[in-house]
Formats: sequence, C-alpha cells, structure tokens
Amino acid sequence: MWQMTERRLTGRSASPGLAAGPVFVIGGPAPHRAPALLDEDGEAALRQAIDAALTDLVALVAKVDEEGADIIGFQIAMLEDEALSEGAFDAIAAGVSPTHAWRSALDAEILDYEHSEDPYFQARGVDLADIRDRVLAHLTGTAGPAHAPAGSILIGEEVAPSLFLSTDWSKGGGVALASGSPSSHVAMLARSRGIPMVTGLGPLGMAEYAILDGETGMVTLDPGPQALAGLAPALAASKQANAHAEELEAKPAFLSDGTRIEVMINIASPADIKGCSPEICDGIGLVRTEFLFEPGHPLPNEESQYAAYMAIAAWASGRPVTFRTLDAGGDKPVLGLTDASESNPFLGLRGLRLSLARPEAFRVQLRALTRAAVHHDIRIMLPMVTVPSEFAEASALLDAVVAGLVREGTACRRPPLGMMVEVPAAALGALRFAADFYSIGSNDLTQYTMAAARDISTVAALHDASNPAVLELMGRTVGAGRVRKVPVSICGDAAADMRLVPQLLGLGLTSLSVPPAFVGRVKAAIESFANV
Amino acid sequence: MWQMTERRLTGRSASPGLAAGPVFVIGGPAPHRAPALLDEDGEAALRQAIDAALTDLVALVAKVDEEGADIIGFQIAMLEDEALSEGAFDAIAAGVSPTHAWRSALDAEILDYEHSEDPYFQARGVDLADIRDRVLAHLTGTAGPAHAPAGSILIGEEVAPSLFLSTDWSKGGGVALASGSPSSHVAMLARSRGIPMVTGLGPLGMAEYAILDGETGMVTLDPGPQALAGLAPALAASKQANAHAEELEAKPAFLSDGTRIEVMINIASPADIKGCSPEICDGIGLVRTEFLFEPGHPLPNEESQYAAYMAIAAWASGRPVTFRTLDAGGDKPVLGLTDASESNPFLGLRGLRLSLARPEAFRVQLRALTRAAVHHDIRIMLPMVTVPSEFAEASALLDAVVAGLVREGTACRRPPLGMMVEVPAAALGALRFAADFYSIGSNDLTQYTMAAARDISTVAALHDASNPAVLELMGRTVGAGRVRKVPVSICGDAAADMRLVPQLLGLGLTSLSVPPAFVGRVKAAIESFANV
Repeated sequence: MWQMTERRLTGRSASPGLAAGPVFVIGGPAPHRAPALLDEDGEAALRQAIDAALTDLVALVAKVDEEGADIIGFQIAMLEDEALSEGAFDAIAAGVSPTHAWRSALDAEILDYEHSEDPYFQARGVDLADIRDRVLAHLTGTAGPAHAPAGSILIGEEVAPSLFLSTDWSKGGGVALASGSPSSHVAMLARSRGIPMVTGLGPLGMAEYAILDGETGMVTLDPGPQALAGLAPALAASKQANAHAEELEAKPAFLSDGTRIEVMINIASPADIKGCSPEICDGIGLVRTEFLFEPGHPLPNEESQYAAYMAIAAWASGRPVTFRTLDAGGDKPVLGLTDASESNPFLGLRGLRLSLARPEAFRVQLRALTRAAVHHDIRIMLPMVTVPSEFAEASALLDAVVAGLVREGTACRRPPLGMMVEVPAAALGALRFAADFYSIGSNDLTQYTMAAARDISTVAALHDASNPAVLELMGRTVGAGRVRKVPVSICGDAAADMRLVPQLLGLGLTSLSVPPAFVGRVKAAIESFANV
Repeated sequence: MWQMTERRLTGRSASPGLAAGPVFVIGGPAPHRAPALLDEDGEAALRQAIDAALTDLVALVAKVDEEGADIIGFQIAMLEDEALSEGAFDAIAAGVSPTHAWRSALDAEILDYEHSEDPYFQARGVDLADIRDRVLAHLTGTAGPAHAPAGSILIGEEVAPSLFLSTDWSKGGGVALASGSPSSHVAMLARSRGIPMVTGLGPLGMAEYAILDGETGMVTLDPGPQALAGLAPALAASKQANAHAEELEAKPAFLSDGTRIEVMINIASPADIKGCSPEICDGIGLVRTEFLFEPGHPLPNEESQYAAYMAIAAWASGRPVTFRTLDAGGDKPVLGLTDASESNPFLGLRGLRLSLARPEAFRVQLRALTRAAVHHDIRIMLPMVTVPSEFAEASALLDAVVAGLVREGTACRRPPLGMMVEVPAAALGALRFAADFYSIGSNDLTQYTMAAARDISTVAALHDASNPAVLELMGRTVGAGRVRKVPVSICGDAAADMRLVPQLLGLGLTSLSVPPAFVGRVKAAIESFANV
C-alpha cells in the first residue's frame, strides 16, 4: 500500500539525464562538540587531525581518475598549506578549543566564496568545506563521511567533491541539492561523467526514493504509482537521446535551410577543456577570466595571464577564442578590487565599470591578451557594458595598450573588441555601441529585466529567460547586429536550455555558446528544430 | 590673491534654490573615549546623560515651529522610551562601559534604518543618530553640538535634525551632504522652508566658501573668481524663479495646445501634507504606505490602517488619492515580513512579490483600503509588478476581500486597481497587464534598466533616467496606456527633475506626481515647455 506523499520540486539543471533510485541523505557538517571532550593539548590534537585527514585524501587520490585526482590533489595542497591552519593554531594558542578554532578559521575562509556563483571560486568553497568537515570528523572522533550505496540518488544541502568521487556511479544514480550551483566542481564532474544532477531545489526534507530529471530540473521525491509507471519508458528514451547527442557532438549543426549554426563552448578555467576535444566545437565563445583572480591572492601579473591565455587558445587549434575581461564584482568578489560593502552588488561597480575605475589592473589584462592575439584567433569581450561612452573608453584604452607595446617593440595585435549584452539599456541601445560583436549574457539580462536575482530562490520563478520581455531584448540585439553587420551570439544559460533553443533560433541567433557537456544535446535540439 | 582650488561636486537635489556663503563643517559623531575616564557607576552615568539630553531637547522644542516641534517631540518620546536604552543598561550591568554600551545599542538600532531610502525609516535613523550623539556628548563631557552662524552653508556627512532646527536660516544658507537622502526628515524640513539642499555629493573635504545649486545638484567649493562673478545675477534669477513658481503653485497647468497636465503629489506620511493646501495639486498620485509598517513594531491592524487612509483621503477634499500597497523589501526592511539575508534585496522578494507570498498582511491592507474607498476617490496601486499573473493574482485577492466584506455586511467598494511600471519586463510588456492605470516608477525603472543601484554612489552616473533606454521604456508605457485607454502617470524622481520635465511631456505624459515642494517649479517647467 502506498503510504508516502509524492512531492515535486524544481531546481536548476546542473547535469542532464534521467535517474531514479533509493535516496541517500548527505550528512551536514559535523556537530559542535564541547571542547572538554578534547585532548588538553589543542595544538597537538589539531595537528593530528590534519595529518589523519591528509592520510584519507592520499588514499582516495589513488582510487579516482585523473580529473578526480586533480580535485583531491588540490585539497591535499590546500591542507598542506600552513596559511590555511595558521589562524586556527593562533586561536588555540590564545586558549580557544581546537574544534572551535578550526571551524572558525575555515568558516571565515569559506565565507569569501560561498555567495559566489562563479565556478572557480565556488568550487573552492565547497572543497574547503570538505576539508573542514574531514578534519572536524577526526578532531571529534566521529566516523568519517558515510558511503552512498551504488545507484543512489544523493540528496542534501551540498555535496562534497570527496563524497561524489568516492561514490560508485557504475549502477546509475544522481545528485539533487537544496542549494549548490550548476558551476560547482561537483557539477562539472557530474556533467563529464554523465551523472544527472539538479541544484537549487530548496528544502528537500526526507524521502526514500527519488526520480531526478536533469533535463527539466524536476525532482520527484517518493513518487506515486503513476510517476513510477512512466519511469521505464522515460529511462529508455533518455538513454537513446544521450546516445544520439553523443553521436552529433563532433558534427557541425545546420538549420533545414542550410544555415550553419555555430556551437561554441563556455569555459571558466583550463580544467573545463581538459580531456575534451576541440573537434566538438566551433570555438570558445566565452572564457571567463576570473579563475586568474583568486580571492586572497595578489592580482596575476602579465606573464602568468599571457601563459594562461596562450594555453587556452592553443587548445582551440585555430578556432576563435573569445576572452571576457575580468567580470569582478556582483557575486564575484576580488580582494583589493571589489567593494564588499555594496548593498546590492549586482547593481554595483562590477565588470567593465570596475575595470574602468581601476584601469591599472585592466591594462595588464589587455596587454596579455593583445600579445597572445599575435599567435591565435583571439577576441576580447567586455562585460556589463551599459552606455556607449564606457565602450569607447575601453576601446581607447585598448588602443593605448597596443600603442605602448608597439613603442616597446613587443609583438601585439589589436583583436576584435566586442561586448556582452546583459544590461537592458545595452540591449535597447545596442545600435549605439561601436562593438565588433555582441554576445547576449542571458543570465544577467534576465535578472535585470525581471528585477529578480539569479541567486535568490524566492524569486526563482521570475528569473525566467523565456519571458517575452527578455526575448524581445535578445531580438533587439540580433537586429542591431544585422543592421551593423557584426556577429551576435549568446553565451548565457539560456543557450543550453533545450526548451529555449528553438526560440533562440527563431529570433535569428546563429551562434550559441554552451558548457562543453551540453554541445551534443544542443546540436540535437538544433536538429529537431531544423526538422520541424 | 586666490589661493584655494575651486572644486565642483554633483549630488542629488534635495531642496531647490541657490545659496552661497561661508562653510560650516558639521562635526562627526563624538569620538570614542577610554572607559576609564568615566564614573565608576556606569548606570548612573548613562541615566544622567540621558536626562541631560532630554533637558536639551525640551529647551529646543520651545524654540522651533510646529513642524520642528514634531520632530524634536519624536526624539523626546524615543529617548523617554525605556526600550531604547534597555540593551545599553543590560550591557552596563554585564560590565561594559556606558559609552560603549550606549553606542552599540543605538548603532544596532540605527543599522536597521541606515540603508533605507524610504523617507519614514530613514528619517528615524538620522533622528536616532542625533539622539545617540547628544547622549554621547553628555556622557563624555564633550561640548554639545556647535551652532552654525546665520547664512552658513552646512557641509558634512549627514546633518542632524536638531542642528538643522537650531540653525538661524533668516540670512539664507544651505546644506550640502556627502551622503544623506532627499527624503530624510531634514530634506523635508529644508524643502518646506525653502532652504537649498544637495545630498549624495561624496567626500567633501574642507572648504571655506561654497555655492550650492539645489536645482542641478551642483556644489562649488571655494569658488574661483569667475564662479563668484556669476553669483549675484544667478541669485537674483533664482529668487525671481522661486517667486514665479510660488505664483503658479495653486493654478492648473496646460500645454500650449490646451492639454491639461495633471500635477499630483507624492507623500510618504501624513506629515508631508501637514500645513499644505490641497488646492496646489490635482490629487495625490502616490501615497507610500510604508509609514504604517515600522521596523520593530507589530504589523498595523485594519482599523489603524483604515483611519490613516481616511485621514489622508479626507485632506484631498474629493481629489483622487492613489495608495500604493506595501512596498517592503528592497531597501525597506519590515520586521517579520522581509528577508534580511538576501544578497541583492533590490532584486529580491519585495513589493507585490512579498505581498503575494504573505497574503495575510496584504489582505488586511486591501480590506482597509476598500472600506475607505466607500467614502473617497481612492485608487490602489501595486508596486514591483513583473508578470501579468502577479497582477491577476492580486486582482483576484482584491475581489475575494471585497466579497468577504460584502458577506460580513461591511460597506466597501472595489476601487480601480493599477500598477507601478518600474521593472523593465513590465514596461516592455505593459499591454499584457489588466491594470486600470499605470504609474511609472522612474527610480526603480532606471536602476534595473541601467543595472545601477540608486544607493551605490560609485555607479551614480549610470543611474540616469534620461538614458534613451529608460525614456524608451517610459514611452512604451505611455503607448500601452493609449492602446488600452487607461491613464498613465509618472511618480518617480524624474517627474520632479526640471531637466527631464520637457522630455516627459514630449513622450506624451499628461500626469506628473511630485513632492509637494516641487509643484510650483514643475508647473513653471510645464509653462516653459508650452511656450517653446
């Protein structure tokens, strides 16, 4: 007899595919313990716990594949870095209990990352939480993280990379998170392994069985008989669709009238293209350069930026690569650059606004990019452009940078300079900008047009890129590109939303830039549209 | 010989008019003092300081006019309320020094108000700071606030109502603030007394002489010979313009083709119409109802709301009065309703979104309004409407409220239900809403269209209502009103910006709603436009 009530929750798809199975509830952080239970020598206790955690991680690193080893290797490096534990040891010396000292030191570190949606920063926040909890478990003598049985649907607030990596996915399964982000390390791992994952579902409660649809972002907890009956054919169809998408991945995409549709990729760090063939894409439509600007670290110098840009462009093997200049601010704080006191950072000094306010950092990035442009088909894209004078100012700065390099006798080339269209004023006024190309940033464009932040769950329903107003602004941008005879593409999440692809093609967009794992599926969606 | 360098700063006009004179620098809050300097009986010291501050205020209240007495009377009432000092006394009992205890308790209270742009809340934040500093001055034995010589231009971060009220304005003068808000208590006082005032100028530094233009928001510190030479004729012209505006105040406004332009007023509390004749306006275009929802107080009941709405509508003497339903959230926190943890509250659960999420509070407000609508020409306006389904949901709720009252046998009337157009999606999609009228909220519409918060000074230049994109969205709204044959007005700051009035009339707007002090000047601007 059916006893439990079916519940349906909708979140953001982080990795496509359909999965079903028994639920495994991910444990929260280790509970607070009274310091009295601990060894009196707090320093020795913490040092022991850190060593034990390191031993765990070294054992785990041997069991996982290369990509997993990178992440665990990163955790090992962080844990070995004395800077991480320094504050905790200082607190212990001042009489604080080791659990409290460790938790406070790590929480302070994590705080810098947790509100970020930027993949690179956020991934590290989750890694730090993973390290925090592993050391705490050793400190308090609680058991290490439990293992999920193969084929489980992992549900919880967040999932630690180490739990994901130590889970046996050979029998299927998936991940359904109350919070989390489609750009976390785990989401990237899930996509590259084909494990369906949904984030931002809100409070999940308890459940025994779950169906998870990584396509629509819907999770059905304790499904009723009807939902269960539909499961087998749906799983079969999903498997077939996956196979077809994989088949299309390396082929060019066309509309039925023969129009070639460019499918490019978005990357947030060199890790995103590791093990990925450039054959699957027509280029990189968006390189987020924030990975070079780590919170708490000095700004990267010209040489390290140059080397990073060269490596990414070399991977593309002649295909065009569009680098977005630093998009700090908003949900991406950068120490020494951004202002943490802003009441509404999404409406503050971010993106190009910040670069123009702090041209010294901007100039270094432009120098590195124009030098790399000698060797590769590089384009430069400006984020958060709002009024034409900002674009003109950046363009003049680029001219000055090129002139400076020429004077020094350093090889350089002024690459095409384009802009993100993500502010409503920029979409409405697109014709007035002297941009060499436009790229629609659907995430921000949607959040400003709808006045609904992409990270506030209570207004998630309003953050809707398919609203006619958002589509109209995208259409305006396409129109401006036609009139000005410059290319228009789209690089926001909307381009990887299968329900939206037909509408985007209908608006006349002929270039979509999506996460690497979505290339095959987007090509399948283009094929379906072409055959309508 | 001229030695100082002229500096020009531009801020937001808070009260129109031109002023020039020697600078009086407003002192900051009293400095931190070592607790050792204080009496050992901290409780007695704080009680003494509070009593001394009360004595000051009672002396001051006798010297000021009715409006000033209201504000000082409010400060006296706050200071007499034991709830305000309770936390400080508790902290003293726990061993904290009285200065520190008092400052912390008051700062915590002030924090709730300080990010608000809403007149009612913010005015109280400044009042609390005023109380805090007055008691601190007595606690630490520092001199009470200095007096500005008559004819001074007061410059500083903020100005306390008590300093403003104790200043002799008979010889002119003005106020130039680094931060502050055009809707603070002091700004309201300045407008009603005709004292020019500019807010949000950013760091002011030191100066000896200043010219302050309350029209353009420009302040010239230590003006050079050229600026000084132009001063006398400018002052004469300003005086003449003021006299002309005053003359026009109670007369209807027309364009040259005979089109009647409605000039309505915006109010944020009953205090705004105190001493003001309804003859000057064609009605109240915007009643902000947030004054009923004080932070830290329980939500107001139906009877107290009904009484407040009746009193305001009665003042209008038959003219239409548009009440905006609670616009909490964003920069207007309401305890028990809004979520203080939102990363970007302007893009969060605010206005109608919050009312629909918390319909119990919304229903009480709708009941009070529909009951008052039996007796007066009342209209209801919904803030932050984004998609048509929200409007439909609110409309259905209004129907249900009316049906409920009818069932109870309580007299009620369903008034026209309109919407603010302040979200870009609403402006672009205005035709799709079943609203009985539209009112353009230019402040929010500008901040979303430009992705520039109205309270972040580093992006103040981008918060520009005259950007073509913002004007286009206003024009779209006017067009939707024409097609749907429903009235369109504008109630944001743009309507009281003399440089924008011609553009608004050019867009076809025939109804402007402005702060009471701006009515005469707006009518003068309409007259100038008509005569072009």
